[in-house]
Amino acid sequence: MFPEQYDVIVVGGGHAGAEAAAAAANMGSKTLLVTMNLQTIGQMSCNPAMGGIAKGQIVREIDALGGYSGIVTDKSAIQFKMLNKSKGPAMWSPRAQSDRMRFAEEWRLALENTPNCDFYQEMVSGLLVENNRVIGVRTSLGLEIRGKAVVLTNGTFLNGLIHIGEKQFGGGRAGERAATGITEQLRDFGFESGRMKTGTPPRVDGRSLDYSAMIPQPGDERPEKFSYLDTPVLQRQRDCHMSHTSAKVHDLLREGFDRSPMFNGRIKSIGPRYCPSIEDKIDRFADKDSHQLFVEPEGWNTVEVYVNGFSTSLPEDVQFKALKSVKGFESVKFFRPGYAIEYDYFPPTQLKHTLETKLVENLYFAGQINGTTGYEEAASQGLMAGINAHLRLNEKDAFILQRDEAYIGVLIDDLITKGTEEPYRMFTSRAEYRTLLRQDNADLRLTPKSFDIGLASKERLKRMEEKERKSDAFVNFFKDTSVLPEAINPILERLDSALVKQSDKMFKVFSRPKVKMEHMLELEPVSGFVEDNDLNREVLEQTEIQVKYSGYIQKEKNNADKLQRLENVKIPENFDYFKLKSLSFEAREKLSAIQPVTIAQAARVSGVNPSDISVLLVYLGR
Amino acid sequence: MFPEQYDVIVVGGGHAGAEAAAAAANMGSKTLLVTMNLQTIGQMSCNPAMGGIAKGQIVREIDALGGYSGIVTDKSAIQFKMLNKSKGPAMWSPRAQSDRMRFAEEWRLALENTPNCDFYQEMVSGLLVENNRVIGVRTSLGLEIRGKAVVLTNGTFLNGLIHIGEKQFGGGRAGERAATGITEQLRDFGFESGRMKTGTPPRVDGRSLDYSAMIPQPGDERPEKFSYLDTPVLQRQRDCHMSHTSAKVHDLLREGFDRSPMFNGRIKSIGPRYCPSIEDKIDRFADKDSHQLFVEPEGWNTVEVYVNGFSTSLPEDVQFKALKSVKGFESVKFFRPGYAIEYDYFPPTQLKHTLETKLVENLYFAGQINGTTGYEEAASQGLMAGINAHLRLNEKDAFILQRDEAYIGVLIDDLITKGTEEPYRMFTSRAEYRTLLRQDNADLRLTPKSFDIGLASKERLKRMEEKERKSDAFVNFFKDTSVLPEAINPILERLDSALVKQSDKMFKVFSRPKVKMEHMLELEPVSGFVEDNDLNREVLEQTEIQVKYSGYIQKEKNNADKLQRLENVKIPENFDYFKLKSLSFEAREKLSAIQPVTIAQAARVSGVNPSDISVLLVYLGR
Ligand SMILES: Cc1cc2nc3c(=O)[nH]c(=O)nc-3n(C[C@H](O)[C@H](O)[C@H](O)COP(=O)(O)OP(=O)(O)OC[C@H]3O[C@@H](n4cnc5c(N)ncnc54)[C@H](O)[C@@H]3O)c2cc1C
Ligand SMILES: Cc1cc2nc3c(=O)[nH]c(=O)nc-3n(C[C@H](O)[C@H](O)[C@H](O)COP(=O)(O)OP(=O)(O)OC[C@H]3O[C@@H](n4cnc5c(N)ncnc54)[C@H](O)[C@@H]3O)c2cc1C
Repeated sequence: MFPEQYDVIVVGGGHAGAEAAAAAANMGSKTLLVTMNLQTIGQMSCNPAMGGIAKGQIVREIDALGGYSGIVTDKSAIQFKMLNKSKGPAMWSPRAQSDRMRFAEEWRLALENTPNCDFYQEMVSGLLVENNRVIGVRTSLGLEIRGKAVVLTNGTFLNGLIHIGEKQFGGGRAGERAATGITEQLRDFGFESGRMKTGTPPRVDGRSLDYSAMIPQPGDERPEKFSYLDTPVLQRQRDCHMSHTSAKVHDLLREGFDRSPMFNGRIKSIGPRYCPSIEDKIDRFADKDSHQLFVEPEGWNTVEVYVNGFSTSLPEDVQFKALKSVKGFESVKFFRPGYAIEYDYFPPTQLKHTLETKLVENLYFAGQINGTTGYEEAASQGLMAGINAHLRLNEKDAFILQRDEAYIGVLIDDLITKGTEEPYRMFTSRAEYRTLLRQDNADLRLTPKSFDIGLASKERLKRMEEKERKSDAFVNFFKDTSVLPEAINPILERLDSALVKQSDKMFKVFSRPKVKMEHMLELEPVSGFVEDNDLNREVLEQTEIQVKYSGYIQKEKNNADKLQRLENVKIPENFDYFKLKSLSFEAREKLSAIQPVTIAQAARVSGVNPSDISVLLVYLGR
Repeated sequence: MFPEQYDVIVVGGGHAGAEAAAAAANMGSKTLLVTMNLQTIGQMSCNPAMGGIAKGQIVREIDALGGYSGIVTDKSAIQFKMLNKSKGPAMWSPRAQSDRMRFAEEWRLALENTPNCDFYQEMVSGLLVENNRVIGVRTSLGLEIRGKAVVLTNGTFLNGLIHIGEKQFGGGRAGERAATGITEQLRDFGFESGRMKTGTPPRVDGRSLDYSAMIPQPGDERPEKFSYLDTPVLQRQRDCHMSHTSAKVHDLLREGFDRSPMFNGRIKSIGPRYCPSIEDKIDRFADKDSHQLFVEPEGWNTVEVYVNGFSTSLPEDVQFKALKSVKGFESVKFFRPGYAIEYDYFPPTQLKHTLETKLVENLYFAGQINGTTGYEEAASQGLMAGINAHLRLNEKDAFILQRDEAYIGVLIDDLITKGTEEPYRMFTSRAEYRTLLRQDNADLRLTPKSFDIGLASKERLKRMEEKERKSDAFVNFFKDTSVLPEAINPILERLDSALVKQSDKMFKVFSRPKVKMEHMLELEPVSGFVEDNDLNREVLEQTEIQVKYSGYIQKEKNNADKLQRLENVKIPENFDYFKLKSLSFEAREKLSAIQPVTIAQAARVSGVNPSDISVLLVYLGR
């Protein structure tokens, strides 16, 4: 029923699978996306939002590389916010609410419009493996589909078990079946698997809420967007709202704790620390008697509402009684209760940097199956797995992003080097070089690389090059152009900044903390330059960052370069650590398991000390 | 978790359930729609089309009564055709292809915009019944939801079992779970249940088809629409295409017959006779070596395509090999194979005319659960069940449509009087008075009645009254106005119709078969009248039908009136047929089971002869 052999078979049409399929197909691999339900491609299992702190940067990186998540988000967004705008640009994080149905529809249409990408709806129940190399998949109908590489992106579906209070039942997501067979087979192959859990809040009827008792949370006045391409900018937006829990709400929730699957031991697996359930928050922060809740619409027109911050697997009657005591929720009606889900994952230390498994050749894992949480984390892994599957089949070099090149590099390096015992999500604090890894420069960092491997389009590269050229020119303009005291002092005075005595380079004045682009634009030569060169908002922003943060950026680049030297010290494949008796025993064990490819990576393996690194460096003749 | 008590709880969000919920809520009942997945409300399980012969009339009737199916179809249509336009207006049947995703989205939004309609996502696993009266439902989580009336619309989900070749697995529809618990409980209450089956063709990738080898099937040049309200008319349309099977295709299919669940006995239940699978067609019409296939796009933008006419549950490899031999399908790629599904239904003779069950008070069944097939049949039952549940709770008279008033009347009367051993679908031939039950006059027939019971809106009534007033006036104009030979003869000559010698009433000339409205419009007084009175297309059409078919219509009205006399002879409730020894034994048995409410209905019970009717009439003193 299928062509002789696909190049890449992607299992699962979530965020990871969709990006994997798009990337492999766009690079030219004959690709098949097999998923349990073709109508749930790109489904958002939890909140209808993309981005946020560190995650927004990842979406920008995905876009810069030629993935679809940013475009799909832009096309389906109902609200946009740049978070942390009051902090330095390294912290700026784009976040958008999407229309849930539109988001999935745009994903599906984007994939349908991707040549080389075929679709097939069914559950994959196992892999075809020959001599430790994957050669295809087997479906629940017993069909064998041949493929040279397989990317598994099963999300929360592998032996998924849903919990609400004391009840539990199989399922991959509310209203959807679990997937079976794959874990069992992989364990037979020698893979280690574990269980994790995550949770989601109730969905409620917006018509039953009293928004006048809540605080409106509008989108940005001048909304930006995710994609570096020409996607639409929001012309109108939908408000979110804020409310909060109270001591009374907490008391009501506590009444159900004895029936909570989290507290009575029924759920043993670990959930996302930074996306805790409301019962977790109450338990862990017993002194706080209020937590924020964000009331997020699920789309342009629907009345369905997502209660962000109220994730819970308490019994549904407890959820309901407690939520009714939240301001504005007095008459709340549930569309469905919150729940927790337990699912299988595979500790990601079993993977290489390419996301290929160490045990089975040409088999890749991406997304929640690797112990991560979040759409963005999933999507970026899918993209990288799709790229690398294609490159490997074409005997090209692997595409690996370094920790100073992308959050995606940090993510994957963390996963495969340190593993994760709890659902891993990205934070800015995980990146050593976050001043380099900004949302504004993901294109400058990544588009040329992606173009080189044949993914990012010519158009994307040209746009990035124009942005780079124009902002460089504008930075140079500031460096080269002087401003007279009589021109700049009125502005400085207004800003309560020390006046200048004599003419000075604009760059220097602009570098002052209080001076912003908007002030520089008051100077005729500056606004003239902008007009003459037709500079857009993006170029202005880029220039401003380059001028005002040049010091920090340069410092961090130097640090990165220093560390890069260790990244350049390669460790031979299948290195036998046990023969190095001067390594600590723990280091020998951990390093053997992880098999780092560079000294720098070895240094990041948990349990490996600086002294172990010295031993290694000496041995390797450095 | 729920308000004290709902008025009406509707179980299932398919076509029946969605209409039931809309009707009950619009009439003022506090209504809850409980369905397994809120994202599949209004899902089209099979082909993405509404209407067709006899079915199109039903959709118009639903719309005339204030249901939503017509509006939702208009808003999501991608192609419109008036079938049978070359025949008399009784046969004209509107049919539209819809964008599958839009259709479901419009349904969901329409319900969300219906005050009094609440939503809850979960599987209902049983009913709460007290003293033979339903008082609510129980969900799979064990929640009890109270409601004064319950409408069951479970579609193909009750113990649904999907078959493909020799494989079978539980499911309510591809990729969705089956529902369990309800059948078992109802059987305990004494309900009889049976099994039926239906099937669906493979979905394929439009990009893999060669349309140039097929015959385009465009929509109407001047597309009409379903709703009598102000819904949009299609400005552009998508083409369908036609291809056909061949002897070779049939041979290839036959190769799989030994593995066919239909032929090897694994499926015992009966499928829809008039929607047969391709293997059925080959088997039953062994002499035909070609069947038509209609290639229907699933939406405006998607590449997914529905292969109408190729419904099958043969093994997927057989489906694939055979379809590849169809012209234009040489390189076909499957999105998913066709399959058959077996499910529980409840023989509808267990229902009253209101669709309330005879055994359990305030419990209604609507849709596929009653042994029907088709969205339109389901939707119309849902509408009637929703209406009657509301009316009963408010102690109002039941709303029953007679066989001469609506196809919906024919449908329900057939179901509850004759039952059905195979999936029941509507045909024009099932209606005795099809000249009365036209698609053009559903509003005239039904809107006033629906307005009276509080469902159809004032606006709807006003539109219908204006249409009636204007077309009556226009008919009268033709009756009253004469035309001179010199004016009409050039037209008649052109039409090859006998010339007139002297001035004659326009009505008479217009009554001639060859003379159409377009010709009459050439006469200045006629076009002047149209302009002066601002008559639209609908009024012109209505007038034309009233003029040209007045004879037939009047005759059928008289027939109906005659039979109406029998409809007026009521049979007392719980009538004991066994005491009437002169009734045939079969009549006594059947009549006792069905408990018809009128002599006319008794006459339609299968196994009841005219002589039995005479006995009854005598006994009842007529
Ligand atoms: C209840 C719940 C709560 C969550 N809460 C949060 C949260 O609070 N914060 C957060 O950041 N993230 C949360 N998430 C996680 C977020 O949804 C995931 O991180 C993200 O969706 C993972 O993407 P993925 O592509 O890896 O998997 P998914 O989005 O889960 O997609 C998996 C896809 O694979 C398909 N599939 C699975 N198995 C098979 C098979 N054998 N054959 C064919 N197809 C298969 C499925 O049908 C599905 O399309 C939550 C998820 C759930 C379900
Ligand atoms: C494979 C297949 C092929 C078909 N082929 C044809 C055809 O060729 N021609 C034709 O005319 N018709 C065909 N049909 C039938 C057509 O789809 C149905 O007639 C129509 O959809 C029936 O509408 P319904 O509202 O009765 O049920 P459905 O549309 O089936 O909707 C049932 C709804 O109830 C929900 N539900 C079920 N049980 C529960 C429960 N216990 N708790 C909560 N929710 C529940 C489901 O989730 C679903 O939303 C086919 C259907 C299928 C599945």
